[in-house]
Amino acid sequence: MTASILLRNVRPYGEAATDILVENGKITRVALGIDPPAGVPVEDGRGEIVIPGLVEAHTHLDKSLWGLPWYTNEVGPKLLDKIDNERLNKRRLNIDPYIQSARQSIQSSLMGSTHIRSHVDVDTDHGLWGVEGVMRTRDEYRDIVDIELVAFPQSGLLRRPGTLELMDQAMKAGCEIVGGLDPCAIDRDPKGHLDAVFELCQRYGKPLDIHLHEPGEMGAFSTDLICERTRALGMHGKVTISHAFCLGTPDPALIDPLLAQLAELDIAIMTTAPSGRLAPVVKTLLAKGIRVCSGNDGIRDTWGPYGNADMLERAMFIGQRNNFRRDDELRLAFDVCTAEGARVMEIAGYGLKEGCAADLVMLPGETLSEAIVTRSPKRRVVKAGKIVARDGVSIRTAP
Amino acid sequence: MTASILLRNVRPYGEAATDILVENGKITRVALGIDPPAGVPVEDGRGEIVIPGLVEAHTHLDKSLWGLPWYTNEVGPKLLDKIDNERLNKRRLNIDPYIQSARQSIQSSLMGSTHIRSHVDVDTDHGLWGVEGVMRTRDEYRDIVDIELVAFPQSGLLRRPGTLELMDQAMKAGCEIVGGLDPCAIDRDPKGHLDAVFELCQRYGKPLDIHLHEPGEMGAFSTDLICERTRALGMHGKVTISHAFCLGTPDPALIDPLLAQLAELDIAIMTTAPSGRLAPVVKTLLAKGIRVCSGNDGIRDTWGPYGNADMLERAMFIGQRNNFRRDDELRLAFDVCTAEGARVMEIAGYGLKEGCAADLVMLPGETLSEAIVTRSPKRRVVKAGKIVARDGVSIRTAP
Repeated sequence: MTASILLRNVRPYGEAATDILVENGKITRVALGIDPPAGVPVEDGRGEIVIPGLVEAHTHLDKSLWGLPWYTNEVGPKLLDKIDNERLNKRRLNIDPYIQSARQSIQSSLMGSTHIRSHVDVDTDHGLWGVEGVMRTRDEYRDIVDIELVAFPQSGLLRRPGTLELMDQAMKAGCEIVGGLDPCAIDRDPKGHLDAVFELCQRYGKPLDIHLHEPGEMGAFSTDLICERTRALGMHGKVTISHAFCLGTPDPALIDPLLAQLAELDIAIMTTAPSGRLAPVVKTLLAKGIRVCSGNDGIRDTWGPYGNADMLERAMFIGQRNNFRRDDELRLAFDVCTAEGARVMEIAGYGLKEGCAADLVMLPGETLSEAIVTRSPKRRVVKAGKIVARDGVSIRTAP
Repeated sequence: MTASILLRNVRPYGEAATDILVENGKITRVALGIDPPAGVPVEDGRGEIVIPGLVEAHTHLDKSLWGLPWYTNEVGPKLLDKIDNERLNKRRLNIDPYIQSARQSIQSSLMGSTHIRSHVDVDTDHGLWGVEGVMRTRDEYRDIVDIELVAFPQSGLLRRPGTLELMDQAMKAGCEIVGGLDPCAIDRDPKGHLDAVFELCQRYGKPLDIHLHEPGEMGAFSTDLICERTRALGMHGKVTISHAFCLGTPDPALIDPLLAQLAELDIAIMTTAPSGRLAPVVKTLLAKGIRVCSGNDGIRDTWGPYGNADMLERAMFIGQRNNFRRDDELRLAFDVCTAEGARVMEIAGYGLKEGCAADLVMLPGETLSEAIVTRSPKRRVVKAGKIVARDGVSIRTAP
């Protein structure tokens, strides 16, 4: 499935122009004036910026409404309103996990993402419908994007008996990561919830990526319990906390001890950099050596209408949310959507160096900052050495 | 300068399809199956959504870097750092107010704005350079967009002697609105600053639109002083407070009395719905009957790199900032960028009804919400009955 190509005249990260030779899906040479080996096609980079593939480290492929008729959202204000509304309407709205994940994966690829971590709902109403659908997309669309699955108990784990058994089946079926959700606020049993998800991690030797929307003191308590288990089980570097709104609480006495633990245990933080609510401060996390990744979360689903699967737009949101105005600050936002995300997802051979996988994006712009704020749709996306998207047209179509 | 046109098969606000007849720049009939009068061209609306022209109620046309080489931002963190950096580098960076305002106005028109309120810097380093430049753009580009000018003491009013006299000259030269800026935080003389700007309003019989970045108690104090003068001078309905971050303070004891005064005095609020800092809560303001408008603020300037002059994107930001997920909530964000903005700017004949000015936008989408979250660049913009922009191409070019 790998391919060879010579990219002529591209600017890595917006710096000086060079050529990039790709052979059998790997970058083999980065230099000016490379002669293409026999049979290797040449792509004119037109002096555009080239970056490694964007990393979508948190989304929900199984339940986007992308490509379906417009959904008029009349859902109530509480988190449980959204959870119940979605579960109860999934089949009625034709949210087929296979079709919808394929649609979003193509859109994601068009926008330049080459790696996706997707949480996938596991609940007693739908069993493994979501997991099976996204796995099918993962297998069938491997040529354009790498997908990994988090088994995600969206409707709660212990409050809905039978879910834990389904989570076990999901891991057995091949999900790469164990998911969890608000051990206090949703399951109302933090010890029970966390013991259960960490036990799954141990049983299958897999990492944890837990949704934690809980704000303030409650979220800090849950974070502390997660740290405690990570330490006790020696799961350093194998845990991600997604959202972690509590870390945005403007109270150093509450937050600083947590940040110290996250750094010590190498626990990663995923932030979407939400507008208008407290959220982790990206610069602070990075300064403490904590790995930070980002994602678009739900794309146009029953939870909300926003999103286009563009991780460059997400970099802009990170910049706006963190009041990044300087170019060196915007670079941090870019890193979170690329190299930092790759560190969290443990993507091997990520980058633009010789030896790296040839997963990359060419896009117009004078500088990286300009590329982020402009977010041109004119992108050429390379996956394993093959051009898989060009100016908004993918080599693949949805089922 | 007005024109006639028949728009065939358009959907006002995304509702049922109709035809719209425009004669001499005014909407004269809205009905199905209108026969075009002799000589009136017919435009196929293709069943697209039609909306009244977007209202950009707060920007800075004179100092965008749009179309200039990328500016690498290395500015310090304080508000005064940004103010001083800009003033000291304006000529070096070639930020010509005429050229730059023309560039941004065209971009704004491409995105569907038909009305712009621009604050324009007045300071002792540049005198009326900005005002003269933007006035020239206002006059020369009248066929694509209506521009009104706020004389804006960006570098402070009293702390830089000579500025007040220049403000007087700017009003004499024809600025439509008196501006002001952080009477405590920048001028450090709230009584002096506010007395001076209100006196200018009185002298020229013009409204006030004052920038108020001051947070918390300080901003609340300034807001109270503004209310006091508005009441004393009978300037009900003639004052706008821009940003008003203080109104986002989560302290009803501080905020509620201010909101009551704003409603009583019909003082309007402009919010950009900034990500990641406290800001006025749109739904609360509207519920209290307070007029709310929005704007893109600075577009790609020395303050920051963001912005594309798209008021539909701004509507999305308003939605995200205010946690609007339901379609009826997104409609509020849309209203702020259209009809509410028109109320604040006192635009006569605004809307899609018979008798209204034919300033409107056709754009793809199933519903208004979809148009906002998709923000298609494929827009057709009509100003005074004439199509002035089509799919990202304007009838005008910049100087």
